[in-house]
Amino acid sequence: MRKFFIMAALSACSLSTLAQQSFDRVNIVSPEFNADGTVTFRYRNPKAVRVQVNSDCLPQALMENPFGKSEANVPVDMVEGPNGVWSLTTGVLESELYMYNFIVDGQKEVDLANKFMCRDGANWTNYFIVSKNNSDAGHYYSVNDTPHGNVSRVWYDSPTLGMTRRMTVYTPAGYDKNTKTKYPVLYLLHGGGGDEEAWGTLGRAAQILDNLIAEGKAQPMIVVMPNGNTNQIAYTEMAPDMNDYTKGERALAQAKADMETSFPDIIKYVESNYRTLKGAANRAICGLSMGGGHTFRTSLMYPDTFGYIGLFSAAATMVHTMDRNPHPDQLRSNEKFNADMKALFGAKPKLYFIGIGSTDFLYDLNKANRDYLDEKGYPYEYMETSGGHIWKNWRIYLTHFAQKLFKK
Amino acid sequence: MRKFFIMAALSACSLSTLAQQSFDRVNIVSPEFNADGTVTFRYRNPKAVRVQVNSDCLPQALMENPFGKSEANVPVDMVEGPNGVWSLTTGVLESELYMYNFIVDGQKEVDLANKFMCRDGANWTNYFIVSKNNSDAGHYYSVNDTPHGNVSRVWYDSPTLGMTRRMTVYTPAGYDKNTKTKYPVLYLLHGGGGDEEAWGTLGRAAQILDNLIAEGKAQPMIVVMPNGNTNQIAYTEMAPDMNDYTKGERALAQAKADMETSFPDIIKYVESNYRTLKGAANRAICGLSMGGGHTFRTSLMYPDTFGYIGLFSAAATMVHTMDRNPHPDQLRSNEKFNADMKALFGAKPKLYFIGIGSTDFLYDLNKANRDYLDEKGYPYEYMETSGGHIWKNWRIYLTHFAQKLFKK
Repeated sequence: MRKFFIMAALSACSLSTLAQQSFDRVNIVSPEFNADGTVTFRYRNPKAVRVQVNSDCLPQALMENPFGKSEANVPVDMVEGPNGVWSLTTGVLESELYMYNFIVDGQKEVDLANKFMCRDGANWTNYFIVSKNNSDAGHYYSVNDTPHGNVSRVWYDSPTLGMTRRMTVYTPAGYDKNTKTKYPVLYLLHGGGGDEEAWGTLGRAAQILDNLIAEGKAQPMIVVMPNGNTNQIAYTEMAPDMNDYTKGERALAQAKADMETSFPDIIKYVESNYRTLKGAANRAICGLSMGGGHTFRTSLMYPDTFGYIGLFSAAATMVHTMDRNPHPDQLRSNEKFNADMKALFGAKPKLYFIGIGSTDFLYDLNKANRDYLDEKGYPYEYMETSGGHIWKNWRIYLTHFAQKLFKK
Repeated sequence: MRKFFIMAALSACSLSTLAQQSFDRVNIVSPEFNADGTVTFRYRNPKAVRVQVNSDCLPQALMENPFGKSEANVPVDMVEGPNGVWSLTTGVLESELYMYNFIVDGQKEVDLANKFMCRDGANWTNYFIVSKNNSDAGHYYSVNDTPHGNVSRVWYDSPTLGMTRRMTVYTPAGYDKNTKTKYPVLYLLHGGGGDEEAWGTLGRAAQILDNLIAEGKAQPMIVVMPNGNTNQIAYTEMAPDMNDYTKGERALAQAKADMETSFPDIIKYVESNYRTLKGAANRAICGLSMGGGHTFRTSLMYPDTFGYIGLFSAAATMVHTMDRNPHPDQLRSNEKFNADMKALFGAKPKLYFIGIGSTDFLYDLNKANRDYLDEKGYPYEYMETSGGHIWKNWRIYLTHFAQKLFKK
């Protein structure tokens, strides 16, 4: 009895600290997975006038925005029921990882009845996974009953940037036990607004690799996820205490160099601290959006370094001179660029991959890049998916790209 | 120009995906740190009738709750200003890490204008740190300009529990470089409702150790933070996809054994995968609340294993027989318990520490434990702080305890 009493007290205390007023929220089931494959969202607020759900699992419309064509979610109204509980049931959902939040009288709120929440840059979002079998997208994004790799937040020296910086490193299951085994390395880069934790949360990198490796579809590999914002030691939560603006500025100082120039610092740390296989055949690099630009320019700057190169919805305009973004049509007259591209493809990378969504605002840019590659006769693999500049596409590209790497 | 255009687009896209409706929230500064040492919270909601702040930085009242005396925060009303922006300014705040959330018409909400948010069990909370100098509490809880240790999510085999489970491991700065150096180990246990990530978030374990070690106040050590819920492979977010109840039940299966019985699996993994110093003089164990009970019973079960033992607000009733929680007054007649305690203190642990808050609902339990130790003449160090069963106290105890460990 007393044991039960104490255990109940401990649990309740942990949950109730700072939450005394909100037990009612804890009792709401949201999202609820219905037997017919639909999902019901619920939100309790008797005083609200209008409550909506904003999610990529609901019907969407493409809207023009200041940045060109891009996905823009259209919130859907919830209906108020007894006790001020608003609800909305989706249609039957395909297998996927879905993001959502509520809009309460015009204000964004998260679903505190769902503890599955993560940070995408400065934006917090709830999420859930739908998986119907062992071969669909949701399956590869889930933690399944397979061996798991370890994920570490490690600090490395970057003399080029004058900082000790943090990055995320995935070591595959068995790395600890197979102490004689050496592994190839995938460098996986995030996009604008993201940081060294982006691929580990909405990107589901550890789950995708765990599952592909367990099923023999991908080689065991180390995955390195650095921070592409070269003015940060790590994502800004890792900046010193918020109210010390001096320290804060230190962490957000002007970058001393760009990602491409500082990239050798990352490779040096990885290859001297992990059991790695060397040579281009054992190194891959890919990235999304801004990270696709980093990937492109880094591979071009060090043409013998990476055997596998992946551009995901890349902000890459195929030049790494000081003037980074001339219109691709101008590149044909850029001698250094043409020479560098010739050197890159002269090194015969095993895979040069381009993935883009058909409504991505960077579609035209990537089309121009493909035209250039076609004109020069440089071989590449192209994957075009539906939708725009969204995580759904980047997970698809990683799942595909990872299976192509380091095959004997 | 085009470069700026693209970079702006990338950042905005990342922030605006799923947040189209809530840019107004992004423009609110909350919390704002004022020059006079106060903090202003802001929340925008023109339709709300009543908005309150619930925080441990605001005046509190002790309330009786079903579990006995415990901290219970009393929400404070915010005042509505122009454009439906509600605000509240605190008094001058002492150095500390503070937690808070909003109560909007009775519903708990988080502050999405503040990206500093973390999970405490199933409860999400915003937080901020106040630090005024380099020797106050906030200083030790902050990421300062010092060398940082790495923090890893590692999976270990627990044959006793029949699972591969996840835990968090901190390796001190320099561990990667000093490849000949071996380190002592602190086993740091969480409380009820928590998991293997609790000490790394609100517990600020990595920051506390980074700062104490950098200042020469603590020895470099490895810190191991296992999951004390022996029915979990890891915290429930790590359970398989939410909508597969079968898999979900696997992760929440009935435990095959308790934490104490399975503890050798943890030590075996740590000492065979990290460069560790062996022997009781190089092993410490401590825990909060439920983890204080785990600490007590584990140290008693393996009396020659730990040289340093710390009970933080411990749910420890000093017995590890099947009937775990008789009233302490009954223990004097428990021969096995008395023999085990004699063996434990016969091994002469270098430190036996008890910390408790003066209003903690476990205060009386710990008082009875101290009475027993006093009666037997078993030496221990006692720290009594103000307040109750709260993280503030557990950070204080860890900061103190860590400085006592492994001194030559």
